[in-house]
Amino acid sequence: METEKLCKLVESIFPQKRILTNLADRYSYSFDASFGEYLPDLVVQPENKEEIASLIKVANEYKIPVYPRGAATSLSGGSLAVKGGIVLDMSQFKKHLVIDRENLLAIVSPSVITGDIHKQAEAAGLFYPPDPSSSHVSTIGGNLLENSSGPKGLKYGTTKEYVIGLEVVTPTGEIIRTGGKTVKNVTGYDLTRLIVGSEGTLGIVTEATLRLIPKPQARKTLLASFDRLIDSGHAITNILSAGILPSAMELMDNACIRAVENYTPSRLPVDAEAIIIVEIDGHEAAIEEEIKRCEEICFKQHATEVKVAQDEASRASIWKARKMVSPAITQMGPTKISEDATVPRSEIPKMMERLHAIRDKYQLNLVVFGHAGDGNLHPNIITDKRNFEEMKRVEEAVSEIFEAAVELGGTLSGEHGIGTLKAPYMEMELGPDGLMMMKKIKEAWDPNGILNPGKIFPQPGQTKVALL
Amino acid sequence: METEKLCKLVESIFPQKRILTNLADRYSYSFDASFGEYLPDLVVQPENKEEIASLIKVANEYKIPVYPRGAATSLSGGSLAVKGGIVLDMSQFKKHLVIDRENLLAIVSPSVITGDIHKQAEAAGLFYPPDPSSSHVSTIGGNLLENSSGPKGLKYGTTKEYVIGLEVVTPTGEIIRTGGKTVKNVTGYDLTRLIVGSEGTLGIVTEATLRLIPKPQARKTLLASFDRLIDSGHAITNILSAGILPSAMELMDNACIRAVENYTPSRLPVDAEAIIIVEIDGHEAAIEEEIKRCEEICFKQHATEVKVAQDEASRASIWKARKMVSPAITQMGPTKISEDATVPRSEIPKMMERLHAIRDKYQLNLVVFGHAGDGNLHPNIITDKRNFEEMKRVEEAVSEIFEAAVELGGTLSGEHGIGTLKAPYMEMELGPDGLMMMKKIKEAWDPNGILNPGKIFPQPGQTKVALL
Repeated sequence: METEKLCKLVESIFPQKRILTNLADRYSYSFDASFGEYLPDLVVQPENKEEIASLIKVANEYKIPVYPRGAATSLSGGSLAVKGGIVLDMSQFKKHLVIDRENLLAIVSPSVITGDIHKQAEAAGLFYPPDPSSSHVSTIGGNLLENSSGPKGLKYGTTKEYVIGLEVVTPTGEIIRTGGKTVKNVTGYDLTRLIVGSEGTLGIVTEATLRLIPKPQARKTLLASFDRLIDSGHAITNILSAGILPSAMELMDNACIRAVENYTPSRLPVDAEAIIIVEIDGHEAAIEEEIKRCEEICFKQHATEVKVAQDEASRASIWKARKMVSPAITQMGPTKISEDATVPRSEIPKMMERLHAIRDKYQLNLVVFGHAGDGNLHPNIITDKRNFEEMKRVEEAVSEIFEAAVELGGTLSGEHGIGTLKAPYMEMELGPDGLMMMKKIKEAWDPNGILNPGKIFPQPGQTKVALL
Repeated sequence: METEKLCKLVESIFPQKRILTNLADRYSYSFDASFGEYLPDLVVQPENKEEIASLIKVANEYKIPVYPRGAATSLSGGSLAVKGGIVLDMSQFKKHLVIDRENLLAIVSPSVITGDIHKQAEAAGLFYPPDPSSSHVSTIGGNLLENSSGPKGLKYGTTKEYVIGLEVVTPTGEIIRTGGKTVKNVTGYDLTRLIVGSEGTLGIVTEATLRLIPKPQARKTLLASFDRLIDSGHAITNILSAGILPSAMELMDNACIRAVENYTPSRLPVDAEAIIIVEIDGHEAAIEEEIKRCEEICFKQHATEVKVAQDEASRASIWKARKMVSPAITQMGPTKISEDATVPRSEIPKMMERLHAIRDKYQLNLVVFGHAGDGNLHPNIITDKRNFEEMKRVEEAVSEIFEAAVELGGTLSGEHGIGTLKAPYMEMELGPDGLMMMKKIKEAWDPNGILNPGKIFPQPGQTKVALL
C-alpha cells in the first residue's frame, strides 16, 4: 500500500506527530544491529496498549504487516520491515517500572531499558539476572520477545525463567493477560513462555511481570589463560562437576583476544589459545572457598596464568576486556555476521575445532567468544557486504556453522533469535513436523500473517541462507 | 464405540496382553487421586513411541478419545476418561534414565518414577529440585504434563524450569522433538514449555531432557510456632526481604496441625494458630548463618517456639510431620477435595482469612497447608460425596475459594492443574479472549479433539463447578 493511503488509515488512531512518513525518518528505521536493510512504508509511535490494539485491527482489515521495534539492537533482524508495512516504534510507550519488594517482582512496561531494571532492583536489595550485552541500551520489550539472555544462563537460567506474567496485544488486536504474579501457575497453557522468544510474531508485549531474587551478597571473578583450547574446555567441565555453579563462565579464543588487544590494550595474553572468565556469586564465605577451588582446577588443567580479581576495580577491568569484544570486532571490517550457535557444554571443544576448520577452509576472518558455561558460543565473521566473492564464502561458512551446531546436538540459536538469516535451517533442526506444529500456532493466532512476517519461518523451498 | 469394535481397531497395534477390556481391569483405571470416576471403554499399554503414534492415527480416523495416564496421582482428574474411549496406560513404556554428568542433564522416559530421578541424580552429586509430594510413586511423564512441582518452587522454580527438551507424539500422531540439550535455545517457539503443563491435551511425552544442578552441600531446617497466623505471614516475608532465599517455606494452620497430631503424634504445638517450616540449603558456612537469622526473624515476629534441627534425624522428623498432612486428612472423611489456589506471597494472610471465613460460613471441615514461600496454598475440604446436602455447600465453598484467589491477584491452580473441576472458572481468570487464545492452539493441534478431551476448557455455558 502507498504511504499516503496507509497514513490516512492510521490518522484516526495516532496524532500526526507520532506518524513518521518522510524518507529520512523511515530510513532511520530500516536497519537494526543485524545485517539487512528494509525501508518501512510508515512508522507509528504508540503511547499505550489501546492505540496498538486499534492499529492491529486496522492492519488485519487491510492486511498490512506490522513490526514491533524496541531499541533495535537485534542481531537477527527481529524488527526489520522485510515485507514493507508499518514499524511500531515502542520508544514513546508510557514507561513504568515498579519494584514489589514483598513479592520479589518487577512490573515493567516494554519501553523500559533493561539496565534500569537492574539498577532499580539492586537499589531494593534484589537482582534481575538476565543481562544481554546490550542491556544498557536495549529495552525489556525487545529482550522478552527475543528471549535475549547473556552470560548468566548457566546458574540463573534465561530471560524466560524470570517472566511470570504478560499483558499482550494479540495478532488480531485483543488485549489479553497471561500468567500472573505467582511463580506457580498452571491455569491452562503457558502462553507467557510461548510469547517470550516468539520474536514479535505472536503478540506485542505491553506489560510484563518479572520475578526477582535476593541480591547475592558478594561475587568473585577470575581470568585464566590456556595454551591449548582443549584444556580450557576441561577446566570448565571440571569446575561444574566439582559442584560449583558459577554465575558466569566466558570463553574467548585467540583471534578474539588479539582483536581486543588491538582495539584497546587490556593486558590480555595475546599468545594464549583461549582465556576463560569465571565469576562466582553468593555468600561471602562460600565464594572465597569456591573461587580458590576454581583456581586450582584451572592450574590442574594446565592454565598458564590465573588472575583472581582482589577488588572491584580489577573485577571491572576483567569484564571490561570481555565487553570490548563486540566493539573491537566491529572495528575489524564494515560487516559483522554475529552468530550464536549453541551446543551441549561437553561439545564445546569439538565445536571450537569445527569453527576453526570452517575459518581456515573459507579463509575468513572468524573470531569466537561466548558463554561457555551454557554452551552458547558467538562465532563472528568480519567481512564486507560489498565484496561479492567473499560474501559467497561467508554464506557457505554460515551454513556449515549451523550444520555443525545441529550435528553436535545443539541449536541454531541460543539467544539472538532466528529472524531471517536462520529461517532456512529451521527444518534441519526441527524436522518438517516440528516446524509444522509451530506454524499451526502462528496461523491459528495470526490468520492474516500481519505480525512481523518474514521471520522464523522459511519461505517455501528455502533451505540455504542468502546474504546477497 | 463399543469395546469390541475398539478392540478390533487396536489389535493391529498392540498384542492381546497389552489390551485390557474386562470390566474389573477397566474399573481400576476409572479413578485417580481426585474426585471423579469414569469408566474407560478400553485400556492399552504401549511400550514405545511408535505404538502410541499408530494409536493416535487410528484415534483420529475414528474420533476416539485417548487419555494418557501415568501413576494416576493427579488431584485434578488429569487422566480420567471423562468422555469414554481409550486410556493409554504408560506403566509398561520402556524405562530409561541416563544421567549426563558433564552436561548436567538427565534423559528420562515418561514411565520413570520421579523419586528415582532424585536418587540417581544425587548419586552423581547432582540435584533435580522439583519434588511433588507424590514423587515416590508418581511418574515424570505425569509430573511434566501437569507441571507438578512441590515445595521448592520459591528458590528453584517449577518443574517447567528444568525441562529443556521433549520427544512428543502430537495429537495427530506425528513424533516430534522440541528444545534440546542446551539451556539456551530460541530456535522458534518454545513448544517444550507449551506442552509441559498442558495436562496431556497437546501431546504425549515419550522422552524428556531435564536440567540438573550441582547438589547443594548442606541443608538446615527449622520449625517455628505462632499464636497468630498473621505473625507467621510476616515472618515469611521478612525472611525473604532479609535477602535469604530458603529452599522451602511450608505453612500449616491449626486444623492441619491437629489433624496430623490426631493421626500420628508428632509433638506439634496443637494450640498454635500456625507453624512454618523453613529449609535453607547451600554452602555449609552460609546456611549456618542464614538459619540463625531466620530464627531471629521468627522470634521477632512473636514465634512462641523455634526448633532448629541439629541433625538429620530431627530434620527428618520435621518433614515427616509435614508429609503426614495428606494421609492424616484422608483419615478425616471419605471424600477429600484438594485445592491449590495460589496468591502473591504478600496476600497469604488475607487468603488465609478468606479461607477460614469460607470454612465458617459453610460449616465445612477445611484445613489449610501449603508452600507459603511461593503463595501456593492447599485448602482441603474433607467431606462425604454421598451427603448431598453437604456437597451443595462444598460446591459453593469451592467457588468462593477460586474467586478469592483470583480477586487477590492469584490463580486457580498453582500445581494441580485445571482438569475438570476448575474448568468452569477459566474465563473468570483469563477473560474470554485469553481463554480463546488457548483454545485456538488446542484446535489447531488437535482438530478432532481426541487428546484428553473434557479437561482445561469449560463446556459451553458452564460457569460453576458441579460436584454432584
